[in-house]
Amino acid sequence: MKKVDIILSNGTVVTMNEHLDVFPQGAVVIKDGQIVAVGPAADLGGEYEAEQTIDCAGQVIMPGLINAHTHVPMSLIRGLADDLRLDVWLYGYMLPVEREFMNEESCYYGTLLSCAEMIRSGVTCFADMYYFEDEVARAAQEAGMRAICAETVMKLPTPDATSYDESLEYCRRFIAGWKGHELIVPAVGPHSPYTCTPEILRETARLTQEHDVPLLIHIAETEGGVEGTRQLYGCAPAFCLDDFGVLDSKTLAIHGVHLTEEEMELMVQKGVGVAHCPTSNLKLASGVAPVTRMLDLGLNVGIGTDGPASNNNQDMFEEMRLAALLAKGITGDPKAVPSRIALTMATIGGARALHLDRITGSIEVGKQADLAVVDMDVLHVTPKFELSSDNIYSRLVYAAKSADVRHVLVNGRLLMRDRELLTVDVETITAEVQRIADRVNVFLMRREESLLDKLVAIGGLEWRETFEVQVKGSVEGEVAVKEGLAHPDISAVWRPSVRDQYDAYLLFADKGQGCIRHREDNVMREEGAVPESIRTLTLTEPGIEQEFDNSVLLSRSRFTSKADRTLRFYCEYFEPDSVKEVSKHRQRWHIRYKGVQFAVNFDRLTKPAYEGAFLEIKSRTWSKKDAEQKALLIGELLDVFNVDRGNLLKQDYVDF
Amino acid sequence: MKKVDIILSNGTVVTMNEHLDVFPQGAVVIKDGQIVAVGPAADLGGEYEAEQTIDCAGQVIMPGLINAHTHVPMSLIRGLADDLRLDVWLYGYMLPVEREFMNEESCYYGTLLSCAEMIRSGVTCFADMYYFEDEVARAAQEAGMRAICAETVMKLPTPDATSYDESLEYCRRFIAGWKGHELIVPAVGPHSPYTCTPEILRETARLTQEHDVPLLIHIAETEGGVEGTRQLYGCAPAFCLDDFGVLDSKTLAIHGVHLTEEEMELMVQKGVGVAHCPTSNLKLASGVAPVTRMLDLGLNVGIGTDGPASNNNQDMFEEMRLAALLAKGITGDPKAVPSRIALTMATIGGARALHLDRITGSIEVGKQADLAVVDMDVLHVTPKFELSSDNIYSRLVYAAKSADVRHVLVNGRLLMRDRELLTVDVETITAEVQRIADRVNVFLMRREESLLDKLVAIGGLEWRETFEVQVKGSVEGEVAVKEGLAHPDISAVWRPSVRDQYDAYLLFADKGQGCIRHREDNVMREEGAVPESIRTLTLTEPGIEQEFDNSVLLSRSRFTSKADRTLRFYCEYFEPDSVKEVSKHRQRWHIRYKGVQFAVNFDRLTKPAYEGAFLEIKSRTWSKKDAEQKALLIGELLDVFNVDRGNLLKQDYVDF
Repeated sequence: MKKVDIILSNGTVVTMNEHLDVFPQGAVVIKDGQIVAVGPAADLGGEYEAEQTIDCAGQVIMPGLINAHTHVPMSLIRGLADDLRLDVWLYGYMLPVEREFMNEESCYYGTLLSCAEMIRSGVTCFADMYYFEDEVARAAQEAGMRAICAETVMKLPTPDATSYDESLEYCRRFIAGWKGHELIVPAVGPHSPYTCTPEILRETARLTQEHDVPLLIHIAETEGGVEGTRQLYGCAPAFCLDDFGVLDSKTLAIHGVHLTEEEMELMVQKGVGVAHCPTSNLKLASGVAPVTRMLDLGLNVGIGTDGPASNNNQDMFEEMRLAALLAKGITGDPKAVPSRIALTMATIGGARALHLDRITGSIEVGKQADLAVVDMDVLHVTPKFELSSDNIYSRLVYAAKSADVRHVLVNGRLLMRDRELLTVDVETITAEVQRIADRVNVFLMRREESLLDKLVAIGGLEWRETFEVQVKGSVEGEVAVKEGLAHPDISAVWRPSVRDQYDAYLLFADKGQGCIRHREDNVMREEGAVPESIRTLTLTEPGIEQEFDNSVLLSRSRFTSKADRTLRFYCEYFEPDSVKEVSKHRQRWHIRYKGVQFAVNFDRLTKPAYEGAFLEIKSRTWSKKDAEQKALLIGELLDVFNVDRGNLLKQDYVDF
Repeated sequence: MKKVDIILSNGTVVTMNEHLDVFPQGAVVIKDGQIVAVGPAADLGGEYEAEQTIDCAGQVIMPGLINAHTHVPMSLIRGLADDLRLDVWLYGYMLPVEREFMNEESCYYGTLLSCAEMIRSGVTCFADMYYFEDEVARAAQEAGMRAICAETVMKLPTPDATSYDESLEYCRRFIAGWKGHELIVPAVGPHSPYTCTPEILRETARLTQEHDVPLLIHIAETEGGVEGTRQLYGCAPAFCLDDFGVLDSKTLAIHGVHLTEEEMELMVQKGVGVAHCPTSNLKLASGVAPVTRMLDLGLNVGIGTDGPASNNNQDMFEEMRLAALLAKGITGDPKAVPSRIALTMATIGGARALHLDRITGSIEVGKQADLAVVDMDVLHVTPKFELSSDNIYSRLVYAAKSADVRHVLVNGRLLMRDRELLTVDVETITAEVQRIADRVNVFLMRREESLLDKLVAIGGLEWRETFEVQVKGSVEGEVAVKEGLAHPDISAVWRPSVRDQYDAYLLFADKGQGCIRHREDNVMREEGAVPESIRTLTLTEPGIEQEFDNSVLLSRSRFTSKADRTLRFYCEYFEPDSVKEVSKHRQRWHIRYKGVQFAVNFDRLTKPAYEGAFLEIKSRTWSKKDAEQKALLIGELLDVFNVDRGNLLKQDYVDF
């Protein structure tokens, strides 16, 4: 009798080996973390004496599931904000919260939470891509899971690096620290072609090849991303990655929703693995990856949950079920991605995609013992048919659930026994995670209360306190302005700027919040030149007004930022109670009248349509006394420009 | 203190009422099966004294889920055969097994199994459509579930009726027996427009209106079904149903994958409910229903699992999650079907679709207490955010699972308490179901072993024992045949038939099984006439051969049926080891030579292509002596027709 550590016995062993062997009354024998024998229980029973024998009657013994793509620390923000436009979700919620709250501690606890969740659903190995990967690796190791941990590199500042140089430096240290670990495989994750630079792509390829570690990269997830890549590099994502040597690493391409046939063929040649994330691709409305085509071409395709903020589970049973269902509905072929193939993708296929198939992904002698034992004696998997070799896969993929997983082992170590987690302290983790989540909650609640905070959250803001006197009035036409400008008391006139201004005011029932103006300012620098378009976003807080006879003194705070996202984004992000559009053609002169500087705007409103023209006169001011003085001068200017005094307007266009 | 039966207290009450009220520390008070109060626990605590108070801290109290479409007895054949072409699945497996095994007993146990499964996943009400609905209703009542039970009516014989008259008679008895029951609503289910006749549609509409019971019907599930409907009735499904008065009942339209805008508008006008079955529509590759459009138009849409043979679960948590995800991926809009709407569809929306919203679907005073209590203190729903009123729906739809359901009540009665089922005996049910499944298994295993049984299973077979002498040989051309026919010993010649025969032989490594010939026989009745196409399927079992000098005696069994499905179907159903095609142009004469009748075929092979022509001479025979006699005459005929004796063929074309 050979002495071994553990024998799992009397279960249906679904090996997922090359021949897809299944042993109905089977056993798996484990010693020193490795599988040393697999076969019929009756044959193996007499040969081995184990420290621990686990009876798996009525259960399936299968390779642990492999989650080929996730961002584990994001379990911290699971369910924070869903059902939003992708940019609102990303720029309005994910990025601001990540900037504020992702640090060593939160990444550590977020990872532990994800590990606990994944172990309970039969996952033994995952490929992560996030920040503070040192902490992710530490937590995964403590939980006892096998993990590829890829530190993210991108051209933008990240929660753990102010520049990509720093990220690359982090990667070097990180690889040195973990290379050769029995569970953790350090890796590098250039975020995506269009969020990186040629230099980052080249450097990460070089680095991963130098240290022989995997390279993980998002590719062709959205149509917009593909378009962005084409604009930056002039070719499709896979080809541009190939140009920079990225496909020569142990590369995992994530998503691949919008890959072309040629790109897929190139990836087959280069041995690139693919992580298919059906739930995330649906939830974020990215599309549906051409999985059947990938498989036909011979790509190694694994299945990933993606981060729990875009799923919101890390449940590989749901994920492989969806992969099987979705392929059929999309191709119109009920035979597409049969259950056998779905389970393959979630186990050995995932291992191949992650370049880990020599050590995990199937139940074979010599591989590490990464296993899940699943209860089949449950209502929703009843009854059992044994009509063809596919029935067992059908039960596992279409009927079984993550809650049916009873035991999980990684490297021959029990991480869960009878659904009890043995390596993680659930109470402590959930308490810590909820503590962090509560802080996020407060942060966002405060922000949601204030337009300014919401504006701050999306970044790039400039503040200005304005204090000015102004008035508007009807004028006959341009002639009146031209004549006025020729007045002897007007000593200097700068060449006017000409512009079409399209303003949208986001208005709120609570006037105390102020309002937000989205302005598209098309400036014609020269007569007949192509207008230059400048888009700004301005929060105008409620101001203090003081009326004079001929004008008004306005003092208010204004926060302006470049509007680099669409008006639709801002509307969905700020959720105004109403939106009012004001468009006008404006000529602006800066003049000096009796030594005082004024701006004179000659405006024709196009929306709301208005027959006549307006002249606006305004001047910055610094004190009430100065304002009174300027109000007098404005009165004189009204005569100079022949403005109808019976109809002076002291508000903004949006207010009348 | 008012005396009541049960108080569910301290949970987050998600009412799904008109205002979508949520009470974070809420309570629901139940008396005589009804909800008598709902609101903050603190307010209600002092007012009521309950026989039983259940503390729901850390849990959500929500309306029980409503499964808007299923075929509950089909849990018996869950996972029997998946990932097949729809026709192979239906005609090869579902229908034969239903014909053989669905009866009172199996429908009763199948329903109990489904009820147990559904109660455990928080379902309190379901709409069924199957056969033996009396047994379905009896089982549902015993389990304590609310159910609409629709007896299926169609133009084909069913497991419980040899004709639709019988089905309608069953419906009348069934309605009389159950009308007014506190849990069971009897209903009628004309199967679909194209599997019914105008008479069935009219009669079922009349019957349901007379008794004020629901009418359930599959509609626009597949493109083929829509096409079939158009061919039968000349219009789109909803319009043809309207013509027969079907939309004037309390109608539930199931699937609606391929509905047009106009049909949906008509259905809104008519108050027709819809059951959306996303998993089934994907799994059977039917497509994806335009749910967002349905909702925009104001249709009442519920969610259904469909029968467990095409899902293979009846898990409404998975179903509502998929409904929310799929709509986004298909429309490209991540805001489509937000979690709030998905939960609405699975509760009050489903109740509206089923015309049951006055009694169930939301937590409101006066409604029946159909409730599910769901544990939220679980890993995969951690952490909790309370940023917007949508967070709770997000947790329930995207993160929670059926396994998190702790208690279920219907009509104020506890059907599950702390995951223990109180009304069904799980052990007995699973044992009975497995016993029936084992018989199905044996039946199909035997059938799979025998081509004949597989052929029998798809119906319409004719058996013939053939016993004939025959030979083939090369001839120069048609002239030789014409000259031969003019021979004085040939006393009668019938006008020849002319045909193009396209044969595909399904061959099996195990020759003992025989082989199957699919023949498309294009017969030209008259010169220049449009050929008539006859397709037959013939199983030829291995025969007994005896060689004569000039011919061979063949005795073999042949089973022939009309081939009303495609060659592709038969290939996928029989799974031959190889397929060989033989095509030929054939002229056939029936002649009498020396008083004995022979068939003479003049064949030109087109596949495999062959230069020359063959003459085949054969005759039926009844005894070996008669065969020897005819073999001699065949020898003479070879001379008459000037056949090359050096190259006689005694096999079929497929064999050389």
